[in-house]
Amino acid sequence: MQPFITKFDPYEPTEYIVDAKSGTRSPAPLEKVAIIGSGSWGTALARVAAVNVAQQDGFHPEVLMWVRDPDECARVNETHENARYLPGVDLPSNLVAVSSLADVVRPATLILFCVPHQFLPNVLAELAPGTVQPNARAISAIKGVDVHIREEEGTADIYTFPAVIEKALGIPCSALGGANIALDVGRGQFCETTIGVPSPQDAALWHAVFDSPSFRVHPTSDVSGVSLSGALKNVVALAAGFVDGMGLGGNTKAAILRIGLLEMSTFTCEFFTSASPLTFSHHSAGMADLITTSFGGRNRRCAEAFVRAGGSKKKKTFDELEKELLHGQKLQGTVTAREVFMFLHARGRLEGYPLFEKVYRISFEDMDPMRLFDDL
Amino acid sequence: MQPFITKFDPYEPTEYIVDAKSGTRSPAPLEKVAIIGSGSWGTALARVAAVNVAQQDGFHPEVLMWVRDPDECARVNETHENARYLPGVDLPSNLVAVSSLADVVRPATLILFCVPHQFLPNVLAELAPGTVQPNARAISAIKGVDVHIREEEGTADIYTFPAVIEKALGIPCSALGGANIALDVGRGQFCETTIGVPSPQDAALWHAVFDSPSFRVHPTSDVSGVSLSGALKNVVALAAGFVDGMGLGGNTKAAILRIGLLEMSTFTCEFFTSASPLTFSHHSAGMADLITTSFGGRNRRCAEAFVRAGGSKKKKTFDELEKELLHGQKLQGTVTAREVFMFLHARGRLEGYPLFEKVYRISFEDMDPMRLFDDL
Repeated sequence: MQPFITKFDPYEPTEYIVDAKSGTRSPAPLEKVAIIGSGSWGTALARVAAVNVAQQDGFHPEVLMWVRDPDECARVNETHENARYLPGVDLPSNLVAVSSLADVVRPATLILFCVPHQFLPNVLAELAPGTVQPNARAISAIKGVDVHIREEEGTADIYTFPAVIEKALGIPCSALGGANIALDVGRGQFCETTIGVPSPQDAALWHAVFDSPSFRVHPTSDVSGVSLSGALKNVVALAAGFVDGMGLGGNTKAAILRIGLLEMSTFTCEFFTSASPLTFSHHSAGMADLITTSFGGRNRRCAEAFVRAGGSKKKKTFDELEKELLHGQKLQGTVTAREVFMFLHARGRLEGYPLFEKVYRISFEDMDPMRLFDDL
Repeated sequence: MQPFITKFDPYEPTEYIVDAKSGTRSPAPLEKVAIIGSGSWGTALARVAAVNVAQQDGFHPEVLMWVRDPDECARVNETHENARYLPGVDLPSNLVAVSSLADVVRPATLILFCVPHQFLPNVLAELAPGTVQPNARAISAIKGVDVHIREEEGTADIYTFPAVIEKALGIPCSALGGANIALDVGRGQFCETTIGVPSPQDAALWHAVFDSPSFRVHPTSDVSGVSLSGALKNVVALAAGFVDGMGLGGNTKAAILRIGLLEMSTFTCEFFTSASPLTFSHHSAGMADLITTSFGGRNRRCAEAFVRAGGSKKKKTFDELEKELLHGQKLQGTVTAREVFMFLHARGRLEGYPLFEKVYRISFEDMDPMRLFDDL
């Protein structure tokens, strides 16, 4: 029951080491996985990868995870737990935290980027030329878009983070979508993810790194669709949170999700011509991730609290709610809502996306949340 | 943002009555709405229709609703409330309960069927030839399928309820899908529904009866898709309830919904060649109704309780749970799960629908709920 997936031959090691004495041949551990980011999602993915590579030929048995703070880093290695962001989940001993970004990246051939999108420019700038191996591949689990407003020309550009990473590092970059409740992935509960991959070779490698009986990985060629879906779903999840905050029920929320998914799909296909609407309607990165996020995610939670606190009127801004409710985690939906609004405004295309527009205006311009349903 | 809808000209009255004295022309009230069924969903739809027709030309101002029990019927008319199935929702005074089925149907031109699917054969049998006006139209909000096993030939047939009604009454029958949390519709919360209509004329009439600013009606030509989606979503909602009963989280549930929606769509398109997969992926009757039902509906609730009670082992059957939890409402998912299983078994097509098969076996054959995820 998996339509529209990229066909690929399962990964097999390509080089072997021959023992001089016995003559036995064993696969060379050519692939080495690095995880850039140690939030809840990064840690959950690092755990999946570490369990997987330990059982597979052709992979270096250690997975390195970048934990910038040296004390935090030491604590993860001592306790084999990321108590701050993924409490209660045992991490395998072959998952090693390292506080130097360059030391994590230099030996790696497969690099997962999973930092809040606000931080990516600094991370990329920190990677001096030559740090990344020329034959390495990247995959982005970053939720967001990169928007540049060109005010003088009265227009704007939009890029996915895989495109940003490819340009900065000169290596191919895939996209990893949801499911995305990190703690449940950490606990090994059955779930699915979609990866958008530029080639069948990338499909084979990333499938080998992440696929398991409880974490099913489906590759598709639609890199921008998977990446954009991960960004835009957070905007729709804010709308879902507004619905919850207004005390409205399941019918209303489902209608908002349906309309939101259509706007996500239409937006992506309008501005990224290679994207496919099927990524949104049929893949885990589309409708399933949107459902998960809109019922359980942090954007939904903060948006509900925002409305219950009386919208912008009682001066509880999203910045305050982020600090109050998320304890250091970042709220990504509001950043994306603003970027998407600015982009659509600069392009003169706001009227095509009434839900996205409303989410921005309710979040930042004091609009009455009940007006969410106007013009839908 | 409404793709793939049936285009239609808004309904306009076709005949006028001219006052002999003044010469003023007023539209003749040619259309009269009848509601067959007074459960929570039937009553909520009756309320929407009654509010609408009171404000529109060309409709008889009264909407009749069949309430079989004479005491119950009298109580609804006295209190303007259906205290048993839609408590706390004021019903307009032009919604009139009638205990005789024939008296409700005889004057009607637009007949909504909204009874539990177990009861439909008796209702249709009760309608003697000539009771239904030959120019009447029907619409079915019944959730289920009509399966006939032909054991001697080793095969089976499947029909939608609109097809059953069309055949029995000789009038065109549309399908009305979800959203479907009746109480929230009764409260006037924003929601959407899809109607599957055989012609633009039916689209115009049913749109006039049900569409309102808080209840948005989108017509499509896919009658069987809308009807089957309403039936099969209850099977998937049982799976969602099993997930909840096992204490698994949002990722798992979203994955089951995604896989379930694909099975719903594939099943319908395999056995009803005129159906469209877009009904499932893009319409309210598809993904939105599935979401609502899988988070809030009665099938989900009973399935969660079923697993928490230890599956079939502690001998809490679905029949017992229905009585215990639903207070007279009917559980439709288990009936549909059984019918779909029997049909697929007779057709030799079970292997194409692993989720549907698992739901049946967990519900009726003592299968361990954790095996839900096998082969998905």
